[in-house]
Amino acid sequence: MNVIADLTVLPIGVGTSLSKYIAACERVLNDYELETRLHAYGTNIEGEWDTVFAAVKRCHEVLHEMGVPRVSCVIKAGTRTDRDQTMDDKVRSVEEKMGG
Amino acid sequence: MNVIADLTVLPIGVGTSLSKYIAACERVLNDYELETRLHAYGTNIEGEWDTVFAAVKRCHEVLHEMGVPRVSCVIKAGTRTDRDQTMDDKVRSVEEKMGG
Amino acid sequence: MNVIADLTVLPIGVGTSLSKYIAACERVLNDYELETRLHAYGTNIEGEWDTVFAAVKRCHEVLHEMGVPRVSCVIKAGTRTDRDQTMDDKVRSVEEKMGG
Amino acid sequence: MNVIADLTVLPIGVGTSLSKYIAACERVLNDYELETRLHAYGTNIEGEWDTVFAAVKRCHEVLHEMGVPRVSCVIKAGTRTDRDQTMDDKVRSVEEKMGG
Repeated sequence: MNVIADLTVLPIGVGTSLSKYIAACERVLNDYELETRLHAYGTNIEGEWDTVFAAVKRCHEVLHEMGVPRVSCVIKAGTRTDRDQTMDDKVRSVEEKMGG
Repeated sequence: MNVIADLTVLPIGVGTSLSKYIAACERVLNDYELETRLHAYGTNIEGEWDTVFAAVKRCHEVLHEMGVPRVSCVIKAGTRTDRDQTMDDKVRSVEEKMGG
Repeated sequence: MNVIADLTVLPIGVGTSLSKYIAACERVLNDYELETRLHAYGTNIEGEWDTVFAAVKRCHEVLHEMGVPRVSCVIKAGTRTDRDQTMDDKVRSVEEKMGG
Repeated sequence: MNVIADLTVLPIGVGTSLSKYIAACERVLNDYELETRLHAYGTNIEGEWDTVFAAVKRCHEVLHEMGVPRVSCVIKAGTRTDRDQTMDDKVRSVEEKMGG
């Protein structure tokens, strides 16, 4: 089952500079060879359900190994059986309707 | 790794009456013997990470089997290494600070 | 426009014990006389759109006044024109479908 | 109070092709002259708190006017008092930590 997901990771208890932790999560997603798009409030992810969620679990583990005592994440996950759709399809589809 | 999670499932393409689909997901969570608390915008879930996320995947599968063409969910997941905490601990801790 | 919402507030940069900040937000919601239900990963809120979102803004302000340098929240908001529905209706509707 | 937000809008009860509704919301955000970045699971938004949330409310209203009976949205909102930060700063900060 393919999924398009969006992941926001919030490390808690390590101050306010979080980018090094977010970068560590990005490297985890790369390790799992997932298609990703980083944005200003999270990361879009596309892939097989089990791979995507294994990677999310690994993000929590890696942050705890880095000394983060508390990790909260928000995941959105979309699956559909009516047709195949990529992340780029989704963006393009909205942009087409906006033009003209 | 224990997790306290919150799951909101949104079946898309089957009209506006969604409670039978939400009820089907609640039954899935029960099948996995997870501790849950249904609320008005989702369900709190407590358990082992792998069990929780296996159940979430099964919710998507079950809804598609029921004929839902598109399923979007929002999951919040919190893990911590500093101390053990249950869902009830979290609520009680806030309520104590509100009293008096 | 009536809304059923769910609010999760995450104070960042003040350590891992967050319940006093969540309690402060609950008091804000009470000040706005909103109907609320606290749960283990946030708070269900029911009310007029403008009142609900004025209260959410006030939560951010109050936490900053308490010295929280960074606040992230997640809000879910549902509106519908097909029929009136309360938070309790939503829960009851799912529970009815689960029984039997 | 400046906010960096992320908005995902889910129109319910109008089938599975949602891009024309998302495009309508993008036009609303443009009407409010907000800085936005469309991605595959929502839109990053940067601006003054009141303007951002007035635009979100208007999205719900416009979708209902288009005949959508039920609209659910997910908003993430981040405010900080420790320093100024733009959406582009956030992405750049993570990318810098990933390089090398």
